[in-house]
Amino acid sequence: MPAPCSLTFPFRVRYADTDQMGTYYNARALEWFEMARAEIFRAEGLSIPALEAEDCYLPVVEAFVRYRGPAVYDDALSMEIEVWRVGNVRLRCCNRVRHVSDGRNVCEGYTLHAAVTRAMKPRRLPPLFDTLAPFPKRS
Amino acid sequence: MPAPCSLTFPFRVRYADTDQMGTYYNARALEWFEMARAEIFRAEGLSIPALEAEDCYLPVVEAFVRYRGPAVYDDALSMEIEVWRVGNVRLRCCNRVRHVSDGRNVCEGYTLHAAVTRAMKPRRLPPLFDTLAPFPKRS
Amino acid sequence: MPAPCSLTFPFRVRYADTDQMGTYYNARALEWFEMARAEIFRAEGLSIPALEAEDCYLPVVEAFVRYRGPAVYDDALSMEIEVWRVGNVRLRCCNRVRHVSDGRNVCEGYTLHAAVTRAMKPRRLPPLFDTLAPFPKRS
Amino acid sequence: MPAPCSLTFPFRVRYADTDQMGTYYNARALEWFEMARAEIFRAEGLSIPALEAEDCYLPVVEAFVRYRGPAVYDDALSMEIEVWRVGNVRLRCCNRVRHVSDGRNVCEGYTLHAAVTRAMKPRRLPPLFDTLAPFPKRS
Repeated sequence: MPAPCSLTFPFRVRYADTDQMGTYYNARALEWFEMARAEIFRAEGLSIPALEAEDCYLPVVEAFVRYRGPAVYDDALSMEIEVWRVGNVRLRCCNRVRHVSDGRNVCEGYTLHAAVTRAMKPRRLPPLFDTLAPFPKRS
Repeated sequence: MPAPCSLTFPFRVRYADTDQMGTYYNARALEWFEMARAEIFRAEGLSIPALEAEDCYLPVVEAFVRYRGPAVYDDALSMEIEVWRVGNVRLRCCNRVRHVSDGRNVCEGYTLHAAVTRAMKPRRLPPLFDTLAPFPKRS
Repeated sequence: MPAPCSLTFPFRVRYADTDQMGTYYNARALEWFEMARAEIFRAEGLSIPALEAEDCYLPVVEAFVRYRGPAVYDDALSMEIEVWRVGNVRLRCCNRVRHVSDGRNVCEGYTLHAAVTRAMKPRRLPPLFDTLAPFPKRS
Repeated sequence: MPAPCSLTFPFRVRYADTDQMGTYYNARALEWFEMARAEIFRAEGLSIPALEAEDCYLPVVEAFVRYRGPAVYDDALSMEIEVWRVGNVRLRCCNRVRHVSDGRNVCEGYTLHAAVTRAMKPRRLPPLFDTLAPFPKRS
């Protein structure tokens, strides 16, 4: 049965991530999601330069975050990421961030990516994404 | 008839906003949306410190961005923001970013905010938000 | 007598600029300095794309900031920037940030830039910088 | 003989760190330096909340970066940090970033920190910093 590829790894809240409310600044969640994509791509042996060499770019076309609770400077957090295929052209990366200590939710969301050429024309995902499970349609 | 409060203003893409694809980095869109909230709150005479003084905080609980097209360093962009009431506790800020020169879309999206006390308990929006139109339900 | 080119303009502290100490995060000062370079280059009719078209890039090779005092969310600040020539290859941009209301110092510093080709080879500054005053040597 | 405390650890260039020149954005170096302070403080058992509980804050009062060479997305870098005492009130954190692969220099610099109370009054460093070597004066 095809499955998404997934990865879970720990990281820390940086001082740069905080804002004057004392918790993490909202835009920083999208930087965390992007860091997770780098980690899972590397773990899967997927090289961004290699993709770009075959004229495949994967810009973010949609992003969503639900903020669930606070996280302060130096908190140990856990990032879960799953990557799904959406048709033959798009990827959906689903992210969930929790506290390592007690599993409390910090935030969750997704980014949607479209395969394009350098000239920004839509193109098929390269064959190496064929093994990814398709993102399930909601019924 | 009640209306959302709205504002349109110009801004520029900073070098710090760019990434190696040559366009704006995805998380920066949420910084632009936040800058727009600062501008419209100030334009409406709404002081964040004054709100906080009556124990009302408005953290982002949800954020969504659709990326529509590129924008490069120093491009002149136009930000439109509308603020709607959602029930008695939440605000919805809708944002749209276009090129000043030709109106091409750059990105659009929204942030949803919940009124809470400093102790993070939900609370009613202060009376000064009563005049805002409620965000229309989709039928 | 040759002079540096200079510009003074107002800006605001964004929420994204703040950190959990309630004032601006230290790295953000360098983003403000960069924004100032964009403003003065545009004001002087200096186009970065035009410079790049003649294979001239101006990366930062050194940066210094002295933090003088706090500035909080939405504070109205004033940025002064001066651009000096350093020999035939480098530029020095000097920045000073103050509160608009009372002139209190926020931070000051400089960035040093070296003219290089796309291949990162040092090159002479283009002729349009010839009118800039040389940065005075300390005796 | 007293020594500075020091730490070396690996990290990666994030996509968020890049700018349109394809290398890391200059202000991001100061975020890396700050991440290094978090790592060394944690490694030394120094808790920022514990320091703040005894009314000791360590804001950056000066920062300096020399940019030595490029580093691109996902490059494996090595951070060295040393923390020295400067008199009884200040700390100096010295940072050096190199490529893991071949030791090429990326950037280096320092941040200077002053011990202050919450009310921003200068104060002595807490006793736990007494074992740090004083930063050597240049002769």
